[in-house]
Amino acid sequence: MTPALDLAGIFVFALSGALQGVRKRLDVVGMAVLAFFTAVGGGITRDLFIGVQPAAFRDTGYLLVPIAATAIAFFWHPQVERAMPGVLVFDAAGIGLFCAVGTAKALAYGLSPLHAVLLGVCTAVGGGVIRDVLSGEMPTLLYDRQLYAVPAMLGSTAMAVLYALDIRGFAATLSSAVLAFALRILAMRYGWRAPLARGVGGPV
Amino acid sequence: MTPALDLAGIFVFALSGALQGVRKRLDVVGMAVLAFFTAVGGGITRDLFIGVQPAAFRDTGYLLVPIAATAIAFFWHPQVERAMPGVLVFDAAGIGLFCAVGTAKALAYGLSPLHAVLLGVCTAVGGGVIRDVLSGEMPTLLYDRQLYAVPAMLGSTAMAVLYALDIRGFAATLSSAVLAFALRILAMRYGWRAPLARGVGGPV
Amino acid sequence: MTPALDLAGIFVFALSGALQGVRKRLDVVGMAVLAFFTAVGGGITRDLFIGVQPAAFRDTGYLLVPIAATAIAFFWHPQVERAMPGVLVFDAAGIGLFCAVGTAKALAYGLSPLHAVLLGVCTAVGGGVIRDVLSGEMPTLLYDRQLYAVPAMLGSTAMAVLYALDIRGFAATLSSAVLAFALRILAMRYGWRAPLARGVGGPV
Repeated sequence: MTPALDLAGIFVFALSGALQGVRKRLDVVGMAVLAFFTAVGGGITRDLFIGVQPAAFRDTGYLLVPIAATAIAFFWHPQVERAMPGVLVFDAAGIGLFCAVGTAKALAYGLSPLHAVLLGVCTAVGGGVIRDVLSGEMPTLLYDRQLYAVPAMLGSTAMAVLYALDIRGFAATLSSAVLAFALRILAMRYGWRAPLARGVGGPV
Repeated sequence: MTPALDLAGIFVFALSGALQGVRKRLDVVGMAVLAFFTAVGGGITRDLFIGVQPAAFRDTGYLLVPIAATAIAFFWHPQVERAMPGVLVFDAAGIGLFCAVGTAKALAYGLSPLHAVLLGVCTAVGGGVIRDVLSGEMPTLLYDRQLYAVPAMLGSTAMAVLYALDIRGFAATLSSAVLAFALRILAMRYGWRAPLARGVGGPV
Repeated sequence: MTPALDLAGIFVFALSGALQGVRKRLDVVGMAVLAFFTAVGGGITRDLFIGVQPAAFRDTGYLLVPIAATAIAFFWHPQVERAMPGVLVFDAAGIGLFCAVGTAKALAYGLSPLHAVLLGVCTAVGGGVIRDVLSGEMPTLLYDRQLYAVPAMLGSTAMAVLYALDIRGFAATLSSAVLAFALRILAMRYGWRAPLARGVGGPV
């Protein structure tokens, strides 16, 4: 994968974690903890489930980028908040990239395509779930009905299908990531929502 | 172990996770996440603590059964809720089975009997703890005073004792599971409760 | 490391977990779960992040000490609560010891100094975070502005610097632990606080 792209995805996710820290009036330690786990928590979980040491503890960039994002949110959070609609586009790009990269890593370690798709989704959305659990909230992912996991699932599936067809490397990653990104953007634009169980109203 | 029994235990646990999702008005993604981690979260935790790759990411059944349970809860949750008293019997069977299987796996990997009992309990009750944490609630296990972990602890202890006596395989698993199951059913029937610290009233 | 010191640190942390269980009126199972994870949760997390089997599942003391702390809190929690100001001094000693030991273990497994510092902090404060998440609360660490992670960070940094200078073993552990301990005690004594993001008031 292109490490620069990877670090860009981590930066955007870390920024969203640090901002959640500001909103909850956490101190700078809390901001840094949320920034770090939002950014790399999905990848850490994926690696533990694959059974290898999490890459975040081998690569210094995975640590420095969340620290930089924390510093930016610490000093300029009002400006970053105002830029959030733009940040959501980068977040969608992060989802796309992370689901593709996560699926590829799971397949490279010999997991079944079904498990690889699960771990691709986990890479993309796991950090946000950890951020919410650490913030003392139910994970947004579980109830807010936005299509967030679903685009990741389709991007991961595309990646697994291309892998089975022996189409690998940058082209496969890019097209899967773009598919997930486009679906996420369309879901935001048109307000597509995940269904509730039959006969159930929305959250109280 | 008998894989069919194992999958039956996973099915019952997944159903209880998916139903909790319906009660909390989660969307279908949230239901599936709760179903999956309720069913296999205990085993995943056990495997991470043993230091091996979680079995749930090697076996396709561990993924398909929670998806099936989610689909059933999605369409027929009122009927499943009505059948819950019956489901609790299956849940007790799941506890029995999981504590026996979990203890055996830990012993097979050379852990001490004491640690194997801990991991047997963890296999049986860990999924429910993860379900509650993801739902934004304190784990029921910690406060509700029902004997839930205690039957698992006795079943796991039986398994470890039989193992030390060189009685292994299906007979040991079955008798340990039946012991935990019977204690859990008796605890439900007679309302046995775990003690609070000396001089403390119930939860406020 | 001196195992007796290590077990003393675990005992103090386990006591604080069991007491939180009493305050939340948990039953004895909940008390034991909080005691165990408060005491060894930081080390478990560190070991998973290093990619080795958690030491807590190899060493019987790591299991028996939390059980003993639970029993003490169960029968004598009013006395222990009254002794808490004294216990906080032991807690500070635990932080110092755990950050030094955790950093040393990460370095011994070949992690970079930066990651080793992160894992030293994680060893010292991770158990408290898990205790709070299991109790259904936001981790105190994230918002309460006490200098708790910061002394651990400085102790871990001292350990990593000494390691780079080839000063290892008991002398390095002791001096790093004493540094973190002293900073923690000074922070408590003078009410030093971690900063909030620029322009943000305290928690609502």
